[in-house]
This record gives sequence, C-alpha cells and structure tokens, in this order.
Amino acid sequence: MLNGQTLSLTSYVNPLIGSKGDGHIFIGPSCPFGMVKPGPDNSVAANSGYVADSTIPIYGFSQLHVSGTGGGPKYGNISVMPFTGKDDIYARSTWSQQKVSLGLYAVYLNKYQIHTEITTSQHSSLYKFIFNKSTNKTNEESTFKVKIDGGIFLGEKPIPNSREAQQFVGSSVQVLSDSSLQGYSRIRGGWNNGRAYTVYYYVIFDHKFSSFSTWHAEQLYNGISEQKDNSDKTGAIVKFKANDLLGDSLKMRVGISFIGELNAKSNLIEKPNLNDGVNSIFDFQKTYKSLIASWQSYLSRIEIQCVGETSKSENAATNELEIKKTDELQRVYDQKTMFYTALYHTMLMPTDRTGENPNWENTTPYYDDFYAIWDTYRCSSPLLTLIAPDREVAIVNALLQIYVHDGYLPDARSGNDNGRTQGGTNAEIVIADAFVKHLKGINYKLAMEAMLKDAEVPPGGNEEKEGRGGLTDYNSLGYVSHKFVRSGNRTIEYAYDDYCIASVAKGLKMMDVYKRYIRQANNWQNLWRNISDHGSRGFIMPRDADGKWVDSIDCGIVNGRHSKMAYNTPLSKDWPTCVCWWCGVFYEASSWEYSFSIPHDVAAIIAKSGGKQAFIKKLNTLFDNHYYNVGNEPSFLTPDLYHFVGRPDLSSSRILEIIKKNFHPTSDGLPGNDDSGAMSSWFAFHQMGLYPNAGQPYYLINSPAYALTIIHLGKSKSFIIKAKNLSEKNHFIVAATLDGVPLNKSWISHEELMNGKILELTMAAVPNSWATGTSKQDLPPSLSNISLE
Amino acid sequence: MLNGQTLSLTSYVNPLIGSKGDGHIFIGPSCPFGMVKPGPDNSVAANSGYVADSTIPIYGFSQLHVSGTGGGPKYGNISVMPFTGKDDIYARSTWSQQKVSLGLYAVYLNKYQIHTEITTSQHSSLYKFIFNKSTNKTNEESTFKVKIDGGIFLGEKPIPNSREAQQFVGSSVQVLSDSSLQGYSRIRGGWNNGRAYTVYYYVIFDHKFSSFSTWHAEQLYNGISEQKDNSDKTGAIVKFKANDLLGDSLKMRVGISFIGELNAKSNLIEKPNLNDGVNSIFDFQKTYKSLIASWQSYLSRIEIQCVGETSKSENAATNELEIKKTDELQRVYDQKTMFYTALYHTMLMPTDRTGENPNWENTTPYYDDFYAIWDTYRCSSPLLTLIAPDREVAIVNALLQIYVHDGYLPDARSGNDNGRTQGGTNAEIVIADAFVKHLKGINYKLAMEAMLKDAEVPPGGNEEKEGRGGLTDYNSLGYVSHKFVRSGNRTIEYAYDDYCIASVAKGLKMMDVYKRYIRQANNWQNLWRNISDHGSRGFIMPRDADGKWVDSIDCGIVNGRHSKMAYNTPLSKDWPTCVCWWCGVFYEASSWEYSFSIPHDVAAIIAKSGGKQAFIKKLNTLFDNHYYNVGNEPSFLTPDLYHFVGRPDLSSSRILEIIKKNFHPTSDGLPGNDDSGAMSSWFAFHQMGLYPNAGQPYYLINSPAYALTIIHLGKSKSFIIKAKNLSEKNHFIVAATLDGVPLNKSWISHEELMNGKILELTMAAVPNSWATGTSKQDLPPSLSNISLE
Repeated sequence: MLNGQTLSLTSYVNPLIGSKGDGHIFIGPSCPFGMVKPGPDNSVAANSGYVADSTIPIYGFSQLHVSGTGGGPKYGNISVMPFTGKDDIYARSTWSQQKVSLGLYAVYLNKYQIHTEITTSQHSSLYKFIFNKSTNKTNEESTFKVKIDGGIFLGEKPIPNSREAQQFVGSSVQVLSDSSLQGYSRIRGGWNNGRAYTVYYYVIFDHKFSSFSTWHAEQLYNGISEQKDNSDKTGAIVKFKANDLLGDSLKMRVGISFIGELNAKSNLIEKPNLNDGVNSIFDFQKTYKSLIASWQSYLSRIEIQCVGETSKSENAATNELEIKKTDELQRVYDQKTMFYTALYHTMLMPTDRTGENPNWENTTPYYDDFYAIWDTYRCSSPLLTLIAPDREVAIVNALLQIYVHDGYLPDARSGNDNGRTQGGTNAEIVIADAFVKHLKGINYKLAMEAMLKDAEVPPGGNEEKEGRGGLTDYNSLGYVSHKFVRSGNRTIEYAYDDYCIASVAKGLKMMDVYKRYIRQANNWQNLWRNISDHGSRGFIMPRDADGKWVDSIDCGIVNGRHSKMAYNTPLSKDWPTCVCWWCGVFYEASSWEYSFSIPHDVAAIIAKSGGKQAFIKKLNTLFDNHYYNVGNEPSFLTPDLYHFVGRPDLSSSRILEIIKKNFHPTSDGLPGNDDSGAMSSWFAFHQMGLYPNAGQPYYLINSPAYALTIIHLGKSKSFIIKAKNLSEKNHFIVAATLDGVPLNKSWISHEELMNGKILELTMAAVPNSWATGTSKQDLPPSLSNISLE
Repeated sequence: MLNGQTLSLTSYVNPLIGSKGDGHIFIGPSCPFGMVKPGPDNSVAANSGYVADSTIPIYGFSQLHVSGTGGGPKYGNISVMPFTGKDDIYARSTWSQQKVSLGLYAVYLNKYQIHTEITTSQHSSLYKFIFNKSTNKTNEESTFKVKIDGGIFLGEKPIPNSREAQQFVGSSVQVLSDSSLQGYSRIRGGWNNGRAYTVYYYVIFDHKFSSFSTWHAEQLYNGISEQKDNSDKTGAIVKFKANDLLGDSLKMRVGISFIGELNAKSNLIEKPNLNDGVNSIFDFQKTYKSLIASWQSYLSRIEIQCVGETSKSENAATNELEIKKTDELQRVYDQKTMFYTALYHTMLMPTDRTGENPNWENTTPYYDDFYAIWDTYRCSSPLLTLIAPDREVAIVNALLQIYVHDGYLPDARSGNDNGRTQGGTNAEIVIADAFVKHLKGINYKLAMEAMLKDAEVPPGGNEEKEGRGGLTDYNSLGYVSHKFVRSGNRTIEYAYDDYCIASVAKGLKMMDVYKRYIRQANNWQNLWRNISDHGSRGFIMPRDADGKWVDSIDCGIVNGRHSKMAYNTPLSKDWPTCVCWWCGVFYEASSWEYSFSIPHDVAAIIAKSGGKQAFIKKLNTLFDNHYYNVGNEPSFLTPDLYHFVGRPDLSSSRILEIIKKNFHPTSDGLPGNDDSGAMSSWFAFHQMGLYPNAGQPYYLINSPAYALTIIHLGKSKSFIIKAKNLSEKNHFIVAATLDGVPLNKSWISHEELMNGKILELTMAAVPNSWATGTSKQDLPPSLSNISLE
C-alpha cells in the first residue's frame, strides 16, 4: 500500500454520480457483481427505477435493478413499501433527506413520516424502518405497515407483449408465521424480449406483526395467509402495533432467489460473513461492513496518488475532508471520487448468479445481466482481466455454459435469457481478450466451438436474440447487404469478431480456421466506399446484394406515397425518422463514427483515407465538427487513433478535452448511459494513462491523470505508472522508461505490463518527438502492418 | 343413444392395448387430455416408464407421463414409492396382480407386500396403499413408509447433456406438517432437447406420519424438514405406525403444478367435481367416478353397433361378458374394445394445461405435449374436429399463443418448449384443417401470420427446434438440397404445408399470398426423378444445390477412408448406418413410401407415374413387397390412394388386410408407436368407413367395420353410417346413398357430412362398378384435377 497505510477507498465512491440525466446509474447498495440490488423506485419507465426528483413519489423499494442501461428496463421485482394509515396497495410518498453512500441508502418518506435505511448482501437485502411514534394516535392500532408486492416491476406497459416492455406472468404470496412470508413474481420480456424468469422471495422481520392482509387482483383479504398464482398480482400488508416496536426500528431482511423460496430463505444468511444464524440476519452494521470490506478488497487493487498529494492524501479518506477542505484537497478528493466510483460502476454488472441459475445444474459459475457485451467488451473486460482475473475467468466460463445449454453465446442477456444483439457477436472478443492475455482455467477448444457457431450458423428467426443476423449474406457476399437492418455496423463488427476468432484459432494451431477467418477480417473493406465528405475520403456505406451502393433508403408508405430519403454521405441518418431505431444502416451512430471503428487494422484505414496527414485531418474533422459522440461505444477507441500515426500527443489532448468536458463528480457527471460500467471503465483506463484494444494483447500509453498509479496484478505482482513533473500544464509525455529502459513507442504489450514493474513517464507542457516514429515496429499493431513513411 | 339406452362405453377401454412392444402406451389412469398421468415406472429407458415384465422391479409411481411416443423419454417426475423396512431411497420391488382398467391401476409389490391402487383427476393423483400388517413384527415401529422422490425422471443418462436425455437441474422438498409435504423437480432436455421445466408437488396423506426423513445428495437426514435446491436430488420418506393405520388403507393425494407449490396444493381439489374440501380429497370412488364420467362424455360421441349385435350389445358393456361369452359376444366385445380404446388413446394427448403455463399469463387455453404434430395432424386433429370441436379450437388457439410468445408454432412441444421438427411445419395443416372445416373462435389472421413466419423466416441455428430447416434452399431453389439433412421429406412436406397456407390465404382473400403458395405447392415435383424401380417409375430423390441428382452419399471417414454409399434407387437407405438417424434423405421411411405422400395432388403423381394402371401396379408393388410400413405416419393415406384411380374396392381390401394383420385387442396389439394416438385414430377412422385427408375438407369412404356408426356432431346433430348386409364376407361397398340420394363417388365433403344425416352403404362379397368413375367430378379432389380417361 502507498506509504504503508491502508486507505479506506470505499469512502470515495459516490453512487449518485451518473444517476441524473442519461447515466442511468443505480443508486442503491450492491455488493461487487451483486445479485441483489435494493433501491428506491419512483418511475416504472426509468431503467434504474429512480428519477432524481423528490416530488415524484417513491412507490417502493425493489430488490433487483440494473445499472446504466438504455432501452427497455428490466427487473424492479419484489417491491417493499413501509407506510402508515389505512391499508393501501398503492402506497407512495414524496421524499426527502436522501443519503447515498457505498452500501447504504437512506430516505425519509414525507407522507408517512418514515425513515428508511437499506444495505445489502450478495443475495439478500436488509431494511431498517423508523416510524414516527406520534403518527399513531392510540398506540394500540396497527397502523405501522409494510407492503410486500409481487406485482410491481419496471417497464410495465398497458399493451400486452409491447416490444421491450416487461410483462406480468404470475405471482403468489404466503404468510408463514407472525414474522415471515414468502412468494414469487414471474415476469417476461424487457429489453431482451426474454422468456419468463421467476424471482422468489423470503421476508423476515425482527418484530412480530399483529395482523396482516394479502391481496390478489387488487382485492384485499384480511388474515388470509395464502394467495396462489392465478396470473394476477398478489402481495401482502403486514401490520405492527406501535407498542410492539418498543421504540426500536423495525428491521426486515429480504432473501431473493431465482431458484425457489427455500433458496431465498437460505439466502437470508450469507456465507462466510453472516454464518452465525438468525441474530446476525438483522445486524445492520455487520451486513454493511461486510459489503464495505468486499468492495475495499476490489477497489484497493488499484491505488492512485494525485498530483500534490503527499501525507494529506490519507486524510482524503476520512470525513475531515468534508469539513475543512482547501481547493487542493477538493481536487484530490474529486479525482479519487471519480476514479473509484468508476471502478465501482465497472463491478456492478454482470451479476454473479452462481448457484442461482434455474436452467441447468449449478455446478459451474453463472453470471447474468450482460447488458450488453457490445458495450462492456471494450474496457470492462480488459479492466477485470488486470485487477480481478479470477472474475473474468468465471465470466468467460459462464458465457461458455450459456452456449452449451442455450445454443449460442450471448451478446446481451438478462433474466436468464439471451438477447438482444446490436451488431457483432462480441463474446468472441471477450474470449479472444482472455486467450491472448493467457487467462487460465478456460476451455478454449469449447470456446472456439462456440465462436464458430456464431460465425457459421445463422440464428434465423432469432437474429435479434443471438448469433449473427444477416450471416447468410456475410458468408456469401463478404458483407451484410442492405436488405438486413444494421448492415453497416454488423459487417464491420463481424470482421473484427472474425479477427478475434482467427487469433484464437492461430493459438490453438487450427490453421484452416485461422486462414479463413483472418481473410474474413478484411470484410469491412467490402463496404468501404471511396466517397469524400468534409474534405476527407473513404467511409463505410451500405451496399445491396448485387454489389451496388445504396444511395437512397425506402422509408415505407407515408401519407399514401412511397417515401425515400437520400443516403449518400457518411452523415446520412435513416433512423429513427425514416426507419425504426434498430432498422438503420448503423446502430446508434453515423458512418463518420463507425468508419474509424476497425480496431484490428487502423493502418489499413489510414492508408485508405489517404495516409498520415489525411488521416489526422479526418480525425480532427470528426472531433471538431462534433461528429464524435463520447457516449457511444463504437467511438471508444477513436480518440486514441492518433497513436497509429505517431502522434500520441494529439490523442492525449483529445482525451483530456473529452474528459474535462464530459466527466464530473456530480449526479449528472456521466455522458450518456453508463452501460453497465462501460463508460466508467473507459474513463478509468484513460485516467491511468493506459487504453486497451480489447481482443489484442497491448495497451496504448496516454497521459495519465495521476502522479502515481499502482495496479495490483495478483500474486504480489504490481505494475506502477509514474508521471514525473505532471501538472495541469505538463500533460504531454516527452520521455518514457519501462523498468529503466527507454521506451520510445506509445504502447506496451500485455506481456510487458505483466512482467514489468515501473513505467516512468516524464511530462512536459510541450510535446516533443517522443513516440513519433512511424515504422512498423514503432506503431501499435495493425493487421496490415504498413509503414507510414 | 342406440336403443335409447346409455352404454357404459368406458368399460370397453383397455389401457393395456399397445403397452407391450413398440406401442409405448401409458397404462396408468388419466383424464381426457389429462395433465397428470400417474403410473408405474420400472424402466428409465421406456417412454411410458413401463415395461411389461413383472420381474423388472417397479421403482416408483411418477405423476407425469406421455403415451405412445418414440425417441427420448420425457417426464416421469415426482416418483412415489411405498415400502417397508429400513429407510431406502432406492426402494424397488418386483410385482404381481397388476389390474389395469380405464382410470384405475392396481398392483401388488411382492417385496414389501403392499397393494397399491391409483386413480387420478386432471391435476392431482390419488393413491391407496394397503400394507400387510404381519410385515410389522412389533406393530410399534414405523416400518410402513412412503418415499416421495424429486430426483427420479425418465431418460436419465450418465453423460451430461446427452442428446435426447432428460437432465437433472434441481429439486427441493419441505415437510409442512405431520401429513403434508411439498417440493419440486426441475428437469431439462428430453426428446425435444427443451429448456428446464419445473414440476411442483403438494402431497397430503389421510393419516399422520409418526416420523420422517429427508435427503439430498443421497444422504438421509432424520427429522430435518427442509432440503433446499443445491442442484442435487432431494426427497422425503414419511413413516407410519401400523397401529395408526387402524386397519385402514393409507391414502395419499399428489397435487401437481407447473406454476408453483401453492397451485399444486390448490390442484388437490378439482373443480367442479371435488369442490367440497378436504374430506373428498381422499374419496377414491368419487375421484374415480368423476374420471369415468368425463371419459364417458367423450367416448359416447361416437356409438357403434357391430354386426350381429342386437339387444346383446347392452350386455357387452357389463361384466357378464367376462363370465359367459360366446364367440359372437367375444367378437363384438373385441371390436368395441379396440374402437373405444382407440378413441381413448386419441384423447390422452396433447395435455390440457390451461392455467398451468409458467411462461405467460394464463388468460387463454394452453395445451402442451404435442409429441408430435407431425404424427397427429393426419387423423387425431380431424377426429377431434368432428367429435370435440371445442377442444380442437382450444388446441389451435394454444398453438397460436405459443407462436405469439415463443416466436414459432411448434411442430412438437413438451415441457413448455418447442422441439423437435421431423419434416414439415405441420401446425399449418392443423390450422388449415380447422379453417376449411369452418371451426369458429380462431383468429385466422393471426394464424396466417404464424404460418408465414414458418414459411418465410428460417429458424437458423434452431432448425431442429421449430420452423423449416433448409428454408433458404427451399425458397430459392424450390427444394431443399441434399446439403441439408432430411432434404427429401422436408421438401415434399413443405410443399403440402404451402398448399395449406394457400387454402387459408384464399379463404382470407389474401390473393398475393395464395398465388405464391399455391405455386410452391408444386415444389415436390422438383425432386421427382424419372427413374424406374421394380417396374414402376417416378420417385422423390435427393438433389444438390446445383440441380444435379445425388447418386451417392458421403458416410464420412470409416477406417481412415472416405466412405460412400450408392443412393440410386428409391429403396436406398442412408440412415442409420451411413449417416445418423436424423441425417438421412428421408425421415424414418424410404422413397418408396414418401413418393406416395403428396396429399394435395394425388392426380399429379398418378400422371407422373404413368397413369391409372401403372399407378395401381406401383401401389401393389409397395404393399406386396412390404415397402409399406403401417406404423409410419407418412404412409397413413397410402392404402386409400386406390380411391384416386376409381378403385375404392382395392383400398378397402388393403385396409382390411392391414388392420387384420396389425391391430389386436392385446397388449402388443399396436403396430409401432401409437404416437400420442396417431395410430389409434387412423384405426378408428378406417373402422368407421371414413378417412380424412387432413387440411382438406373431405373424407374418403371405405368399407366400415360396423353395421352402424353414429357420430354425434354436437348441437343435436349427428351423422350416421349404415352398412347393410355387412359381414366378414360382404366387405365391399356396392351402393351408397346420402340422405336417400344415390351417391356414386367414393368421398364426401365435410359440408355433406355436417349437413347429412345418413350415409347408407350396401355391402356385398364382390365389388361392382360403384364409384369407379374417373372423371374430375368422380375422383377425390386433387390440385391438378386431371381426368384419368
């Protein structure tokens, strides 16, 4: 540890960052990769259930959420709501005094005068309700109540089977004793249009309730303990006498399972931290501290020292900072907050559901909530590979078991079902990244089988769910023709997926496979059209099955006329006005963005764009004209592309500018959906001065934001990045050494990182000739491997 | 009713018919379309769980079975086993004194000296165990035991994920009181390679048990009431003191649900027959009588009077027949037994799971266990359309909801998941059959959407599960080329499916769809090869994608050499020796059989085969050389094809010969798998003297086996078939009238049947010119509609 002291890194995490605006960050407590994520819900339309507006009433705290996602919401199951007064299955209240910190959520429900606190374990959540005694006039009546609702979930729409809507299937409830109840909620649909999944619950209170009601189909039944599943919504209201609470808080623990109610019950007691039975089930501090400890263990795998931080830095971890902070301290605090919150976001999803998979035997790791790999393969997977390789191995093995049992690798998955695909079959990149970085404990022959299934067997009617849509075209024409939706980004993504298959095949000595796929890795060139726009040339454009370029798009019948739009520039955008959101040539971006997204052969796009200077101009046009979208994953690598023409200084300037403008330690401090930590891990890598090209074993070197970064690689190994003379002004790298040996290129291999000890960078206000060489050896790897000069 | 008296038709049903050999008939009690089918299991490899060999020990009575299926077994869940002596989770016993009648199964377990009786309701089974008091020496020990086992199921194989094997996922058990317990068993796989399904149970006894044990992972725990799901097998042993049984039998009721344990509990009480609470739960007689009554209601929809049967016939329904039967009585009894048992088989599957579907809201009918429609569309569906149209409407609606929620119509389905396809997408024929026969209450526009999905969207990687495999070829080449498995039968089946789509499209006035599909209905001709064999010419043969006929099949590498087999005659058979069972050109039959299977255009195959005489010769060659297989569904229509050349007498002779040789009122009395009643409904139709061409609104008229048949069509309408002068010798039709009007053709339309009252046939020992005309008007309908002479 830095200075030999333990830092309390968890105090830097601010779960509110990214919770406002488009970030869609979940704000409640969660363990690392936590299955259970309890939190407030005040909007069924919000992906995290939460809208940062205290005048919009909270209608419950549900136990499962996703973080940072777009599209149709998922989960929001098993809603609990404390309230007072008459029985009310629609209880809701405006709120105030919200306090959010890592592992802890607190809020005051104005209408009912109830203070609520929540923490959680991996599989069960813990609630503390403090009722206002004066609410109860007689002190005898049972007016302190808690509702447990199996009929609430996010994304409900009135039209059955609405696209991307979650849909109700069934639920039940059963009061088991004067302090416990169980039941389930069965839901289908959501963003992935998935099959039904069932969330079982087992709820236990630390006080006896004096009476209860259950309901189904909106009808309350006093004292009736069971409501079976009639395909209608059920729930229970349990009621407490004020005297029974004896001045205590009321505590409630909610065990959750995807398997069954007995497993939900068993999940009330978490191992190994809470293995001493019923008493500790309600130990709020113990549950909270256990969560904090597990996060501390993950967060401490990377330590940073900010500029100007010396012994003061230790204070940064304490509350003293809150009280007497100088500007300097605030900057350090903000930097650390943003970094550790980014690491935290990266480890919220996928969720570890090992032991909780209802679809096959739980004898292997199971992870769900890949939402979506299209987002997370770029930075999240490479980050875990560095700091939590055991997790990345388990995740890849889970992907392979999904292939074995469900037939295809997921590109996205939630609620135990694959779906949806956006472009490529990017689990292949995750597998290749693990393979080229030598992760052990993965059956790569099985992985190859799974990848080849993606690449060779069309998913047919399920092409929104998994596999490669338009594969019949791709494998016969060498590109996906315009008759398929998303033909542009599908083609270029499949080409990169094929490059990844080739990499693994080569390593496995499957040379026939290697030869075929390394050839197919060039398929993006089949859509490269030599047109000019804004002074640059060469863009990915749509083609029909006969090989003709598509110059106009059929928008269907509008006002009785066959409507068309021109599609002849890389800024042409056919969705969502001419065709549906998912039906355009490119998904969520323009050709200007996608035409840079060839991660395995930047040298070729440079050559095709007219060489070094033309390429720099093309990149500058992208950024200066705001064709670049920081919030969109296909552009994640783009600011780093100056490295490939020997101008890492230009990359660093762009990255600094992008971060300064878009990332802040505030609720609205994330640009666009965080996408399960994709955005946050992009930020974290760049702040350390590294950037991975997922699927390939190297990292681009950028200007770091910290004076010192220590990445603990496990087995007592660590990699240290020092930035000498770093300051706001001195942000260009002018010299570098790796373990004392001068390094005059802007990238290091994964092997160098794993074996290296110290990357020492010298920073200055003006760039020099460092890493400007453009020979094959100097430049970062490219399939074409062309010297520029 | 005949003679104005109520017949007890249920006494004719003999559930043992077809239970020995290949029939695979389930022998336990079942309601019509019964979800719960309790019965003995003494072989995990048997499709019905049962092998007719009393030296093979019974290891339990499980609650769910299928009937008559081939391929990998499904179900066999929630096994119960009474036993005595030490706790034994592997209790099993040889058996004797088996008695099987409709709704009742009884057996004596030799090892434990326990007499067991079983009856059932739609969703719960009822057991009666009579222990031998002398077994218990002390009369104090708890040695009378019942095991409830969540870990037993059919088709288990040691290799995980074995093809067609059922595989264990998880289970739990929970003893709830001194007389009740609940739990579930979660299984995946089976013949359809389906996803996991969960069978919940709730068991209640009429006596208190004195103690119990539960187990998981083969380890017993005395007095431990819960075993949660750890992905291992669980169960319970409950134990009774002999004194507590007080000379009574021990009764046990097992509620089953696919939804949850509370629903399993609720299913203990069936409505409306057993709605008076716990007391009647154990009323064995009431449960049995309720089952009998529901079967009587279905069986009585067809009444038959055998030759020679007058007032004696009434006795046939009673036990008197058992005591003093003459030859004549025996013949009548056998005829009725075979007929009503056939009707019974037809209504064992699909199973009515309305209210028990865990995958979407239970607001519409839900049927499962289509195993497979490929088998049942030919006769079972048309039979239900006549005698239980409400059921057929519900079944079609269930198919449509499966399309809506799972994306494709099933060709087969069990355990709530589609799979597998064998050839065509034959739900289309079921839909067309309903449409052309004017069944009301079906959304045919939705049905058209579902059919077009089959016909236009390839199922890709899921082509064994649903949709049309090889569709890309079919829709571009006009046939499925040899690179796809089962290319021969797929092509001709798709052509008939397309004919059915065209029929519905025409009725819906969707003329563009009609034109396309009526053209595609000729696609079978693209595989018609003009080769000769055994004096006949023209057969369906495989072709490659370039249009070349395939003359040899690649069998892969054998002993290091690339092995090939010639494939140049319609008797060539590539499976299972050269390629796998499912990988041949034709599924389960030869080209000799399939080349007659063009149900919509027999006139065209007659023409292509060389005309009337050549066709008769070709048919004779098929039958005389035993190329015809009575047990195989693609040949179901073939014996009737002589009708299409004006020789119904030859059809009738063949049919009589086939039935005489293959159908018997004995345990081994069915030729081949009954296939969910497919074989039995083929028999039943032909015995009545009618045969449907499913998907088309007419019936071929054959020699009936009964002097009189009354088909109750509902709404007080009935259709009567009289066979004047019928005797064993007089089996040719020589004259016919329909409602008194002479009928000189060998078929009647569905409309004629529905509006008609009496079809009177005059029988004689020698055929005459009846229905021998070969003009377009005389012959049964064909797409080509060619006059023969």
